[in-house]
Amino acid sequence: MSETMDRSGRPFDTKTFDGMLRRRFFFTESFEIYRTAARWTGDNGGLFDYGPPGCALQANIVDVWRKHFVLEEDMLELDCTILTPEDVFKTSGHVDRFADWMCKDPVRGDYLRADHLVENALEARLKGDKAARGVQLKAEAEPKDAKKAKTAVKDVKAVKLDDKTVTEYEEILAKIDNFDGDALGELIKRLEIRNPIGNGEVLPPVPFNLMFKSSIGPSSAAPIYLRPETAQGQFLNFRKLLDFNNNSMPFASASIGKSYRNEISPRAGLLRVREFLMAEVEHFVDPESGKRHPRFSEVEHIELALLDRDTQLSGQTKLQNVSVGDAVKRGIIDNETLAYFLARTHLFLLKIGVDQTKLRFRQHMANEMAHYACDCWDAELQTSSGWIECVGCADRSAYDLTVHANRTGEKLTVQERREEPVEITEWVATLDKKKLGPKFRKDAKAVETAVAALDQPSLGSLQEKLKTDGSISIPAPDMGDGSASATLGPDLLSIEKQTRVEHTREYTPNVIEPSFGIGRILYSLLEHSYWYRGEDTARCVLSLPSAVAPTKVLLLPLSSHASFQPIVAQLSRKLRLMGVSNKVDSSGATIGKRYARNDELGTPFGITVDFETVQKETITLRERDSTKQVRASVDEILRAVKSLVDETETWQDIQKRLPEFTGQEAE
Amino acid sequence: MSETMDRSGRPFDTKTFDGMLRRRFFFTESFEIYRTAARWTGDNGGLFDYGPPGCALQANIVDVWRKHFVLEEDMLELDCTILTPEDVFKTSGHVDRFADWMCKDPVRGDYLRADHLVENALEARLKGDKAARGVQLKAEAEPKDAKKAKTAVKDVKAVKLDDKTVTEYEEILAKIDNFDGDALGELIKRLEIRNPIGNGEVLPPVPFNLMFKSSIGPSSAAPIYLRPETAQGQFLNFRKLLDFNNNSMPFASASIGKSYRNEISPRAGLLRVREFLMAEVEHFVDPESGKRHPRFSEVEHIELALLDRDTQLSGQTKLQNVSVGDAVKRGIIDNETLAYFLARTHLFLLKIGVDQTKLRFRQHMANEMAHYACDCWDAELQTSSGWIECVGCADRSAYDLTVHANRTGEKLTVQERREEPVEITEWVATLDKKKLGPKFRKDAKAVETAVAALDQPSLGSLQEKLKTDGSISIPAPDMGDGSASATLGPDLLSIEKQTRVEHTREYTPNVIEPSFGIGRILYSLLEHSYWYRGEDTARCVLSLPSAVAPTKVLLLPLSSHASFQPIVAQLSRKLRLMGVSNKVDSSGATIGKRYARNDELGTPFGITVDFETVQKETITLRERDSTKQVRASVDEILRAVKSLVDETETWQDIQKRLPEFTGQEAE
Repeated sequence: MSETMDRSGRPFDTKTFDGMLRRRFFFTESFEIYRTAARWTGDNGGLFDYGPPGCALQANIVDVWRKHFVLEEDMLELDCTILTPEDVFKTSGHVDRFADWMCKDPVRGDYLRADHLVENALEARLKGDKAARGVQLKAEAEPKDAKKAKTAVKDVKAVKLDDKTVTEYEEILAKIDNFDGDALGELIKRLEIRNPIGNGEVLPPVPFNLMFKSSIGPSSAAPIYLRPETAQGQFLNFRKLLDFNNNSMPFASASIGKSYRNEISPRAGLLRVREFLMAEVEHFVDPESGKRHPRFSEVEHIELALLDRDTQLSGQTKLQNVSVGDAVKRGIIDNETLAYFLARTHLFLLKIGVDQTKLRFRQHMANEMAHYACDCWDAELQTSSGWIECVGCADRSAYDLTVHANRTGEKLTVQERREEPVEITEWVATLDKKKLGPKFRKDAKAVETAVAALDQPSLGSLQEKLKTDGSISIPAPDMGDGSASATLGPDLLSIEKQTRVEHTREYTPNVIEPSFGIGRILYSLLEHSYWYRGEDTARCVLSLPSAVAPTKVLLLPLSSHASFQPIVAQLSRKLRLMGVSNKVDSSGATIGKRYARNDELGTPFGITVDFETVQKETITLRERDSTKQVRASVDEILRAVKSLVDETETWQDIQKRLPEFTGQEAE
Repeated sequence: MSETMDRSGRPFDTKTFDGMLRRRFFFTESFEIYRTAARWTGDNGGLFDYGPPGCALQANIVDVWRKHFVLEEDMLELDCTILTPEDVFKTSGHVDRFADWMCKDPVRGDYLRADHLVENALEARLKGDKAARGVQLKAEAEPKDAKKAKTAVKDVKAVKLDDKTVTEYEEILAKIDNFDGDALGELIKRLEIRNPIGNGEVLPPVPFNLMFKSSIGPSSAAPIYLRPETAQGQFLNFRKLLDFNNNSMPFASASIGKSYRNEISPRAGLLRVREFLMAEVEHFVDPESGKRHPRFSEVEHIELALLDRDTQLSGQTKLQNVSVGDAVKRGIIDNETLAYFLARTHLFLLKIGVDQTKLRFRQHMANEMAHYACDCWDAELQTSSGWIECVGCADRSAYDLTVHANRTGEKLTVQERREEPVEITEWVATLDKKKLGPKFRKDAKAVETAVAALDQPSLGSLQEKLKTDGSISIPAPDMGDGSASATLGPDLLSIEKQTRVEHTREYTPNVIEPSFGIGRILYSLLEHSYWYRGEDTARCVLSLPSAVAPTKVLLLPLSSHASFQPIVAQLSRKLRLMGVSNKVDSSGATIGKRYARNDELGTPFGITVDFETVQKETITLRERDSTKQVRASVDEILRAVKSLVDETETWQDIQKRLPEFTGQEAE
C-alpha cells in the first residue's frame, strides 16, 4: 500500500521490516503473553517494551541529544516528577483543553477518534474513485500522516465521484488538523460518515481528555495526573533555574523523561503510544530582544525543506527548500531564535542517521496548535505510514509562566537593572490592610490577589467608578463564599496616579520549546536505515551510524577452537576500556550467519579471530554496509576501530591504509 | 538529635546540609510554588525534582551502575512500560499483598502508618525514661532506621520506666519490621499508643495498597497500575530474553526506570518518596546448579559488614565483619550467587564514593520480606536519619515466572538437552479433545488449563477416584460460569502411568534480584561526602569522586579582563572534546568565592586563567579537597585532568610531577 522506498531504493516492505524488528527484539508489545491468556480483559494498546537492541539504540539517541543540546549549549537539565497535582494542569489549561474529539458508536460501544474517522472515510472514497477511474492505486499520493495508512479501510469499493467532490475531499484532508469538534461533527453528518465496522451511525464528537488520572495519598481526595509533557516542571522551577544561572538571561532548561497520553485507540505501532520518552528544551528569552539569536550566523546557511501554514490552507503540500537565513528574511519563519532551533534540530536528526530526503518542517495551522502555542513548526519524518511528527518546535510565548504566576502569586519574572532609569506614571491601588482583615477574614488574601491582578485600563475605569458609585465590584476567583467577586468601598481601597523612577526592568520571558518524541524518532530512523542485500529479503541490514548503533563491534572466534577463547575475551576487555561497546558471538553458527545476524542489529564493525591470529597476531575488521574487510595487527585494528567510532576516520580512510582481506566471509 | 558524624568527624549538621542542597538546587520539592498558593488542596508529599547538579549526579551514578553491572556482565537491558494492566499485578500478588498497615484517627481524619506509629511512640517513651534517669540524650543509641528520627516526637516527657519495660520496648523496636497488622494492632492496644497529634485513639490497622491506580482507554473499564518495581516487565519478557541470549543460561536482564509507591505519609525528604528511579537486575539461574557462581573466586576475599536474621530476632544489632567466602561457608549467606551480588553491590557503592564504615548488609526477617521473596539482604547506608535500605538483594526463587506461566498458559521455562537421556515414569492425564469442545464450549480452554495444572500426587489420587467414583471434580479457576471447578468423567479424561525417555530437561529458573533505589543512594552519598572547612559551616564541601561529580572541571578567568575570554572558551571546547564535563564561571565574584561555590557542587578540579596564561601559556589546576594547586603548560594540565578523571593517576601523583602554585586563592 505504501509508496515509501527503502534505503536501497526499493519499495519499503513493512511486513518483513516489522517482523525483523520483533525477531531481533528491538521491541515487543508490553505484556504480550497476557494478550492470549484466558480471562484477559486488559487494554495494552499503545504500550511497548524495548528489548536489548532497542534499549541501547534509545540510550544512544538520548546520549547524542544530550551532547548536541544540553552540553553544547550549557542547558540546565532537570528531572521533575511525572506525577503532577490537578491544580497545576488546571492552571496550564490541560484539564480543560488537552483533549481529542471522540465519537461513540452507541450500538457497538466503539469509541472512534473523530478526525481519524473522517480521514479514513474520505481516503477510502477517494481510493474507490480512483479504482473506478482505473487509476493505478500504487501511484497514488502518499498519505500525509501516520494516522491514515494504518487505519485505512482495506476493502475499497470502486465508486466514481464527481470532480467537485474529489477536490472538496482533498482540501478537507489537507487541513484535517484544523477542524474543531463542531466542524468534525458537521462533516460526519453532511458526508454521512459511519463506523467502518458495522456501518453504524455515530454520536456527535465529544472531547476526551488525554491525561491519565489517579489520586495520591490514602484519603483519595487528592487527584493527580501523569504529565503529558515534561514542560510544566521546568516552568514551575523557573525562579530556581534563573538563580542557578546567576540571574543571567537568556538560558535554556532541558528534561528527558517519560510522558503519557491516554490515546483513544492507538493502532500505529511505535508511532502512536500511550507512554513515551520525550526530550524537551525550554529556552527562556527576553520578549524584546529574544527574537534575535547570538549564534544564528552559525546556522543561517542551512537549507530546510519547509511546508508553511499558507501552503497547507490552500490545500497544497509542496515543500520549499529555503536556507534558514532566507526563511527569516522572507517572514516564513517568524524569528531567528525559532529558526535557530529548527536548524539545530535538522543537524541533530542528520547526526543520528535520519535520511535528509525524508525530513521536512511543517508549520501548524491555527486550530491545530496546542492551546499554549502561538506558533509551531514540526519536524516530520517520512515513513511507510506517511509523514510523522517527531519534533515540535513551539513558541509558547509567556503563556505558561504567566498563568502559573497568576495562580500562585509567585513572581516568575526577570528583573534587570536598567542602564538608564525611567520615570513611570501609572494607577496604583492601595488596600487598607488594617481594615481588610477584620472585614474579609479568611478571604483577605483572595481580595489582595484580586486587586493585584487588576491592569492599568481596569484601574483607570475603576477609579472613576469608585468616585461616582461609592463602591466597586471586582473579579476575585478565590473567594471562599464562591461569589468570585469582591465589593470594595473607598474606606478599603484607594486608586491614585503615582509617579516612580524605575531602576530595574521586570518582564516575563517568552519560551521557545523544541520537544522531541524519542520513540517516534527511533522508529523512523530504523525505517530510514533499513534495506536488504541483493534480492534476498531475509538478508536485512540496518545501516545505523556507529554513534547510535546498539553495539559498535561484533567479536567472532572463527570456530569453537579453544585457542580463540582467551584472545576474544582480551579483545573484548580492551575495547571496553576504550569505551567501545562490543558483543562476543561464539555460537556454533557460520561466520556468514553470525555477521548476518548482526547486520540486522545494525552493528557497524566485526572483528574475527582465526588461526592466523594465533600465529601472527593479526585480526580482520569488517564493515557492515560494504561487507569489505581489512586485515592488520591487533593494535592497528583496535586503533582503526577507535577512530571509526569517534568519527575521526571513515571506512574509506581505513581501506586506504590497511590491506584488504577477502577470506572468511565465503567460508 | 542525630549521632552521625560528617566526613571530617564532626556531628552531622542536617539543617546546614539540607539548606545547602536546596540553595545549590540539587533538589527541591516538586510544585513548590503551588504549596503556598490560595485554594491549594493537592498533596505533593514525597515528590521531588532534581535541579541541574542533582540531575547530573543521578545521571553519573546511573552511568557507573550501567558500566559496573550491565556492561561488565553482559546483561540484557530492557525498557518496559510503567503502566501495567491490573491482571499482571493480580497474578504477581501485588494487588492483594503490596500494602502497608494503616491506622485512622477517626476524630482528626489522620491516616498513620501503623509500624511508624508504634516505633515513634516507643522511642519517645525510651527517650523520656533516659531523661528521667538523667542519661545524656546525645549519647543514646543510633536510631535503627530512617522512619524514626524524622518523625520522632519532639517534646520528650521525662517518665521513668521499669527495667523490664525498657527491655521489652527495645526488643520490639529491634524487630519492628517483623510484625503484621494483627500484631501491630495488639501492640497499639496493649501499650496504649495514640495519635501523637491530639492524642486520639486510633482504629485497628487496615492494609492500604501502595500502588497508584488509573484506567486506560476511553471506556474506563480497564484498570491499570503504575509499577512498584521494574521487575515484572523483565519476567514477562523471559522467553524473548532467553531467545535473544541464544538459549544460553544463566543470564541476567536489567532495567533502569521510574517506579511508584503511594506512601501513606512520606516525610523523610529524599528517603521516602512516591516516585523514584530504580535500577534492577534479574539474574536467572538453573535451580540445580545456580547456587554456585563462576566468578565467585573474584570476590570471595571481600569483607562485608553483616547483620543476619538471627542476630536481629535476638533483639541485637551488632555487625559481623566476614569475607563473603566465609559467610557462604558458614551458611550466613545462603549461596555463592547471592553472595556474589552482595559483593558486587559493595564494590559499586564504594566506587561511587559511599563511606565503607557507613555500609552494612542486613538480612530480612521472615514477616518483613516481600511476598515473592524467600531470602533477602539489604545494603543499608547510615545517614543522619539512621540506617537506610538502599539496595535490596532478594532471592525470588521461581515464584514470579511460575505464577505468570500458570496464569497465561505460556511456558516460562528453559529446555536443555540432557547429556544422558533419562527414563521417566509418571501419571499422564489425557483429555478427549473431540468431546471436550462440544461439552464445555467456551470453557474448553479453561478445562485444559486446569488439567495441565494438576501435579503428580493429585493425578495419583484422582486416578483412584475416577476409578471408584466414576467422575471427579477438579479446581478450574477460569470457568466462565464462576463455579471455579470442572467435573470430568472417564469418557473425557483418562489418567495412566506412562514411561518416556526424556532427552531434554525443562525447568523454571530461579531469580536473584539486586534492586537499587538510586534516589536513596544519591542522598546517602551526599551525606557521606559532606563536610565543612575549618570552623566555618558556611564553607561546605562535597567530596564526591570525580566519576560521579556533576561537573568535573570549573574554568575560571581571573577577572573580566577581555584577554581571558577566548582562552577560557577554547579550554572549555578542548575539555568537551576530551569528554570532560566543565563549567565556566565568569561572574564578578572573587576567585575564592567562585571556588567555594563549586566546592558545594562537588566539582573536583578547578582551572584558572590569569595574566601569566596570556604571557606564558600556563594555567593552574586546583584540587577541591586539599585546595592545593599546581601550575604548568595548558597541554600538561589538560593531560593531568584527563588522567585524574580517568583515575589513571591520583592527585598525589600530579603533585609529584608538577610544580606547586600558591598564588591566587588568597587574592
